[in-house]
Amino acid sequence: MSALNTDLYQLTMAAGYFVERKTDEIATFELSVRRLPEPRNFLVAAGLAQAVEYLRDLKFQPEEIDYLRSLAQFRHTPPEFFDFLRKLRFTGDLFALPEGTPVFANEPIAIVRAPLIEAQLVETYLLSTFVFQTMVASKAARCVLAAEGRPIVEFGSRRAHSPGAGILAGRAAFVGGCSGTSNAEAGLRFDIPVFGTAAHSWTMAFGDEERSFRALQKLLGESTVFLIDTYDTIAGAHLAAELGRPIWGVRLDSGNLGELAKEVRRILDDAGLRGAKIFATNDLDEYRVAEFVKAGVPIDAFGVGTQLATSADAPALSAVYKMVELKRDGEVFYTAKFSADKSTLPGAKQIYRYAGRDVVAHYSECSDEFKGEPLLRPIIVGGELVENLPAMVSIQKRSQTMIATLPERLRELGNVEPYSVEMSPRLLAMAQSLRDEMQPART
Amino acid sequence: MSALNTDLYQLTMAAGYFVERKTDEIATFELSVRRLPEPRNFLVAAGLAQAVEYLRDLKFQPEEIDYLRSLAQFRHTPPEFFDFLRKLRFTGDLFALPEGTPVFANEPIAIVRAPLIEAQLVETYLLSTFVFQTMVASKAARCVLAAEGRPIVEFGSRRAHSPGAGILAGRAAFVGGCSGTSNAEAGLRFDIPVFGTAAHSWTMAFGDEERSFRALQKLLGESTVFLIDTYDTIAGAHLAAELGRPIWGVRLDSGNLGELAKEVRRILDDAGLRGAKIFATNDLDEYRVAEFVKAGVPIDAFGVGTQLATSADAPALSAVYKMVELKRDGEVFYTAKFSADKSTLPGAKQIYRYAGRDVVAHYSECSDEFKGEPLLRPIIVGGELVENLPAMVSIQKRSQTMIATLPERLRELGNVEPYSVEMSPRLLAMAQSLRDEMQPART
Repeated sequence: MSALNTDLYQLTMAAGYFVERKTDEIATFELSVRRLPEPRNFLVAAGLAQAVEYLRDLKFQPEEIDYLRSLAQFRHTPPEFFDFLRKLRFTGDLFALPEGTPVFANEPIAIVRAPLIEAQLVETYLLSTFVFQTMVASKAARCVLAAEGRPIVEFGSRRAHSPGAGILAGRAAFVGGCSGTSNAEAGLRFDIPVFGTAAHSWTMAFGDEERSFRALQKLLGESTVFLIDTYDTIAGAHLAAELGRPIWGVRLDSGNLGELAKEVRRILDDAGLRGAKIFATNDLDEYRVAEFVKAGVPIDAFGVGTQLATSADAPALSAVYKMVELKRDGEVFYTAKFSADKSTLPGAKQIYRYAGRDVVAHYSECSDEFKGEPLLRPIIVGGELVENLPAMVSIQKRSQTMIATLPERLRELGNVEPYSVEMSPRLLAMAQSLRDEMQPART
Repeated sequence: MSALNTDLYQLTMAAGYFVERKTDEIATFELSVRRLPEPRNFLVAAGLAQAVEYLRDLKFQPEEIDYLRSLAQFRHTPPEFFDFLRKLRFTGDLFALPEGTPVFANEPIAIVRAPLIEAQLVETYLLSTFVFQTMVASKAARCVLAAEGRPIVEFGSRRAHSPGAGILAGRAAFVGGCSGTSNAEAGLRFDIPVFGTAAHSWTMAFGDEERSFRALQKLLGESTVFLIDTYDTIAGAHLAAELGRPIWGVRLDSGNLGELAKEVRRILDDAGLRGAKIFATNDLDEYRVAEFVKAGVPIDAFGVGTQLATSADAPALSAVYKMVELKRDGEVFYTAKFSADKSTLPGAKQIYRYAGRDVVAHYSECSDEFKGEPLLRPIIVGGELVENLPAMVSIQKRSQTMIATLPERLRELGNVEPYSVEMSPRLLAMAQSLRDEMQPART
């Protein structure tokens, strides 16, 4: 994790803040999503563990500093700035939603309060960390809801946006409720279940389906899953039925999965293999899963790949990281952006969750006024971790409970009446007074 | 780069191949895209350098092997397999299109020929490496065509699918013709130009636009780009005009970019700043860029972010990695998949490019019959690199030349009559004869 993995302008601004003696100013930035992409009714926050790892390890390597010095953009920068960068560590605070928390538009997923240069520098990395995992966890939650209790396994590593993204997609899918991933490294790194048995190439490598099936059975025993569609699905099902136990089940990966599943189920049952399961894959998403479940198709578990690991119907979120407060010489200035289509609300925030609605308030508003549960928690304070991050299974369990207690309509796949997120009167007043103050500059 | 970063089934199959004494069989796998996503008229191959790095570094760490041994899927696997994994390196061959080559559906982007276990194991990593970069390079090429000579800079790190994907998106965008990226680490790692000056938070940190602009000018001199829309774009433009030189230009990031650009141009010109450029950002893509260019809007350069770094309109490609040949005891078996919607053509292939059409032939077909340029080149042979990979600027230059010599219609942004890709008669005959052979197994 390189501190250089950021947009160059974070570094030119850092140089400028250094030159302008702004190194002691403390900025508060808020990471949030402007709009839920259709048709998401909620998002599932994820990525905190990787954000924490990054902030705690943040530093520049000597060759990175040499590189910056060589750039035209730093031609006028005094050499002291590079000494400053050499010593730079993250010394600020991170507040965040626990991973797995359902979250809505304009609610902070994370808040960074740190010396201006540090808070600015980490923007790019934090956005791509939180947002990618949140996107995948959110999509996973939809697939899991659609499956109504049948397991969903994340199978999308090969379609992820780079091999590293594949590992993180496996993690995020688990946060969102998936039973596990096909990605072996995700299994090791995050201690989550991994799944997988054989591909079409296995069958092709034997030239003969029967030999390949027998070899697989010998290898995997009770974990055996016959992939029966390499040549002809029904012939493959008959072969699986003939070979019989030990078997976990069969996998369908092409053709009309609904029709085939029914026929394959009959073939397996007729052979006395009622316990053998049918696992389906092939460009599935929450809608196809819901279709199968509603039609009572005998599919026992689903592998979801491309659509999940790339959040293909919403491959980006309108996420922003905006300065909301700046403390200079002991005085706090509230900050906001008023540009045409991208305005922000000033002030560091807390989210209070009630049954069926959230209130977003300034963090200093007395929480007694807000009997809801405050959702943002201090994670890093003064550069030090102050909360033990939970194990993946705990994250998933808490998330599923929170999703289950959302208003029922939000668990539909289509768009419904949005969840109610109110901004506190104080926040709105702060925005108005800042707008009034800026007025002269805008005319 | 961990060898464990793969789908688990690659490893269960590896165990099976080991047990079945298939370690000496040599497999040939082909990586290609089944269909061009609408409305792409061509793709631009990218990702080879990272694929090479991976193959040359491929090995398992001791803790990764311990992890595998702990999994239920390997309960029946003999311990010798894990010794085998410990020593495993990539000893095979890689053939690939030079990066930047325009490529079409069903043409191999890369071919791996290696001992079966090695060739199988690398599937997941190679797919996500080649496909992600190819996707982004292809999108970049479209933006560059739309801009008709105006520079396009890749600005999407924050929206990329993880921080690692952001770095690679910067690289791939450069392959596809972008002038550079905002990602500083991509600049260092790949020696490509980096761009960036200041964000809205810069202005907000000063509270006062004028002070922030003056500080920026002091910092950046001739590289100064004023971001003029934090509060009010026209007021910002007047302020930039007042401050005058040194200045590179101004950036617009919200509102009606077309209208604003015209007004801002007039303001700058009236102040005698005809040389000051207008740089536009804000959720741009090739269509918006084309619109501005066709309308003669005075925008001099574009920053394209989200849409480019996530290839948002086609965030996944229908890419596959399929076994096409298997050599066992000196005999070559051709392999293919005939499942309903996913059949493949057997045999290792070469692509010959003519003016306006390609022919895909079996690699052993005498190239005298094919006077076109053979596009796939040996990159790794017997585990050793046999071709020096070109510098990024050479890749980009060659790519732009190749794109410029494609039939003109393919450089349109909308869908046109597809480029002609013929399969050689021999390839088609091989497929038919294999299909006939398999017939008994399919009834």
